Amino acid sequence: MTGLCTDLYEIRMAAGYLRRGMTLPATFSLFVRELPRERGFLVAAGLADCLDFLERLHFAAEDLAYLGDVVHLPEGDLAALAELRFTGDVLAVPEGRVVFAGEPLLEVTAPLPQAQLVETALLNFATFQTAVAAKAARCRIAAPHADLVDFAARRTHGLGAARAVARASAIAGFAGTSYVAAAREFGLWAAGTMAHSYVEAFPDERTAFRAFAADFPDAVVFLVDTYDTLHGVRAAIDVARELPAGSRIGIRLDSGDLGALAVQARRLLDDAGFPGARIMASGGLDEHALAELAAAPIDMFGVGTKMGVSADAPSLDSAYKLVEYGGTPVMKLSVGKLTAPGAKQVYRGEPGQPDLLALRTEDPPAGREPLLEPAMRGGARVDQPEAVRAAQRRFEHDLRWLPEPARRLVGPEPVEVHATPMLLRSAESVRHRLEQAL
Amino acid sequence: MTGLCTDLYEIRMAAGYLRRGMTLPATFSLFVRELPRERGFLVAAGLADCLDFLERLHFAAEDLAYLGDVVHLPEGDLAALAELRFTGDVLAVPEGRVVFAGEPLLEVTAPLPQAQLVETALLNFATFQTAVAAKAARCRIAAPHADLVDFAARRTHGLGAARAVARASAIAGFAGTSYVAAAREFGLWAAGTMAHSYVEAFPDERTAFRAFAADFPDAVVFLVDTYDTLHGVRAAIDVARELPAGSRIGIRLDSGDLGALAVQARRLLDDAGFPGARIMASGGLDEHALAELAAAPIDMFGVGTKMGVSADAPSLDSAYKLVEYGGTPVMKLSVGKLTAPGAKQVYRGEPGQPDLLALRTEDPPAGREPLLEPAMRGGARVDQPEAVRAAQRRFEHDLRWLPEPARRLVGPEPVEVHATPMLLRSAESVRHRLEQAL
Repeated sequence: MTGLCTDLYEIRMAAGYLRRGMTLPATFSLFVRELPRERGFLVAAGLADCLDFLERLHFAAEDLAYLGDVVHLPEGDLAALAELRFTGDVLAVPEGRVVFAGEPLLEVTAPLPQAQLVETALLNFATFQTAVAAKAARCRIAAPHADLVDFAARRTHGLGAARAVARASAIAGFAGTSYVAAAREFGLWAAGTMAHSYVEAFPDERTAFRAFAADFPDAVVFLVDTYDTLHGVRAAIDVARELPAGSRIGIRLDSGDLGALAVQARRLLDDAGFPGARIMASGGLDEHALAELAAAPIDMFGVGTKMGVSADAPSLDSAYKLVEYGGTPVMKLSVGKLTAPGAKQVYRGEPGQPDLLALRTEDPPAGREPLLEPAMRGGARVDQPEAVRAAQRRFEHDLRWLPEPARRLVGPEPVEVHATPMLLRSAESVRHRLEQAL
Repeated sequence: MTGLCTDLYEIRMAAGYLRRGMTLPATFSLFVRELPRERGFLVAAGLADCLDFLERLHFAAEDLAYLGDVVHLPEGDLAALAELRFTGDVLAVPEGRVVFAGEPLLEVTAPLPQAQLVETALLNFATFQTAVAAKAARCRIAAPHADLVDFAARRTHGLGAARAVARASAIAGFAGTSYVAAAREFGLWAAGTMAHSYVEAFPDERTAFRAFAADFPDAVVFLVDTYDTLHGVRAAIDVARELPAGSRIGIRLDSGDLGALAVQARRLLDDAGFPGARIMASGGLDEHALAELAAAPIDMFGVGTKMGVSADAPSLDSAYKLVEYGGTPVMKLSVGKLTAPGAKQVYRGEPGQPDLLALRTEDPPAGREPLLEPAMRGGARVDQPEAVRAAQRRFEHDLRWLPEPARRLVGPEPVEVHATPMLLRSAESVRHRLEQAL
């Protein structure tokens, strides 16, 4: 039922285009118009789901029955939609790359009805996953020496979102996820040991810790704050002493002043002869909390809700705009929503240089790298689906390229994006043509 | 693969409990600890997905293979998990009811491993959908006389979220949704006509409007702001004049000063003899923007992103806490995270009275209505899945009950929730017992 995973107007428009034979190639550009104030950069994500969706696009018999019976599309429209598949081309920024406002995340070129119909799903996947990857990247920047684990599954916007958040945060350098279904699907490290309820289900803390260490000797991380944190650390130490020599243990702090408690816990663990015991912290963390804890002796952070819903920017101001139809560049003139016409390419240079936004037909400028790459041709993927690790490597590469002002957690300044003279001239001439026609 | 749709620690804990025969009934309480500053109330939603999940809970062969091969659970655990189904009871606040912080949205009583395992999914569904229903309800309050339509699908956190947002906003009184898959699944009104790209794909605006009116004579809403809004309104009027007498038409404004443009458009339409033409507005709306437009002659609003991600409160501070195990009330003492022990009930009185939070074993207070109702017994639903309309009616009822301070868009004051003396005494005695044991 991929065909109905869209806004109704896309279906009406596609049906109308099909009736009128308006099936010339159209190019739509998907981009973020403006960065949220607290973002100096974005991290491209969501392309894998976009390509899956395009590959599977079709209207099943029950979709067509609904459109006939309830939306009252006539037989002719239904017959045309029944045949519809995505046969177009996609140029896209590969996942994991750093991008900025105004730069296309992807461009679709396909017969107009197809290209229109997929707007809702492509915007959804790319906007949400790019937003979360950017938020996760800021966490990564704030805690460069600790392992980060995605703990967001319980508060994301549905379990589909939990899956996407695990993947997007892995792209941005998270070491693992607590969400098992995603760990399995994407080959990520699945992390997790015990909750407060576990400790409460036993007569006391020591008994709970002892049971857990006996049951899961390779994952012994004790949650120590159910009743009293330092008391819990001492109980963990007592139980650790009963374990075979060389056992790897850890503790998790989930409430209170995490920095101060980590210092005290570290001292207790070291004094007790467990200098290798790892300290994990969790509980309402975001990039700012991580930055404040940078000096604390914490080896690993569980980062949940605020990353998983991108709490301070839960959506991006994204758009999917028709920029060319039947070989003619188009744009709309709506107040505050100008879009440059024509299929595009983005060229990146050395650190410190602005990115260049160019018409795709322009000669590539020397010494610069194009960001958009062919992802789909004639409705078929150019490459096999890639491992998350490939996107993670791109992110690591681009993070080294990213200038300090854009990396800043507070008051970041994005890298500038300059339009080429040819793009500016083209926009001017299209606008002139449209204003004349009014 | 419902079994893996959880955090890893739930599986480890469940496996540990099963090994040790810790299968006495446990009661977990799911509630929101604190309301976001801009919320005077919440609207219960997500229960339908919770019950679906519980009914389907099981570990498939490939889930068990993963847990054995990658997580290294031994054969005995896998055999026990293979048998596991949800056989417990659920008491829940029916969807659509108004609730406040501290009031259980649902309580699960089941053998400890089962009740633990479902934490992640239940928290996810209930937290997210309750947050969105509350945001949609505030939009409903801000625009009591206009029809509201969910336009959020392109920016929700995945398509599963788009489905849930369409449903949650319908519960809170939205008239329809643009997202077709959800409209079909839940029997909602599917709304939508044309995008700017439609207008741009034709040589000019008039030609586009004419084509649309010819193709969809029963859904003639012209998007008028692609180039110049008032120019667009005039083009719409010209095309409307060519339609058969009695045709129902409308226009949609999607940019600029919506209030001022609506006044001008209304005048143009009235003067041209179309007093029945409806005016729709969309574009970055939330409850505050709707309130500012209350006096504008706008008949219908498309409300998208900010509602669909609950932009100012994209998550709620929810918890799923063990409150009783094997007949003994429990609680944790972590800093700032106190939970009252024991299975509970909420009693509601007349408008202006505080809600009462009581132990479930207490006698019901006279003249008050219990909020939690049996939803599942022995793993089976008590009632068949209900239509969205039933939840919508509950919301309409509770909205009439809701006092003005809680309805306020700015600086709302929630209805107070008082614990009964018996609950307070019980909490004190459990805390005393736990502190003694430390």
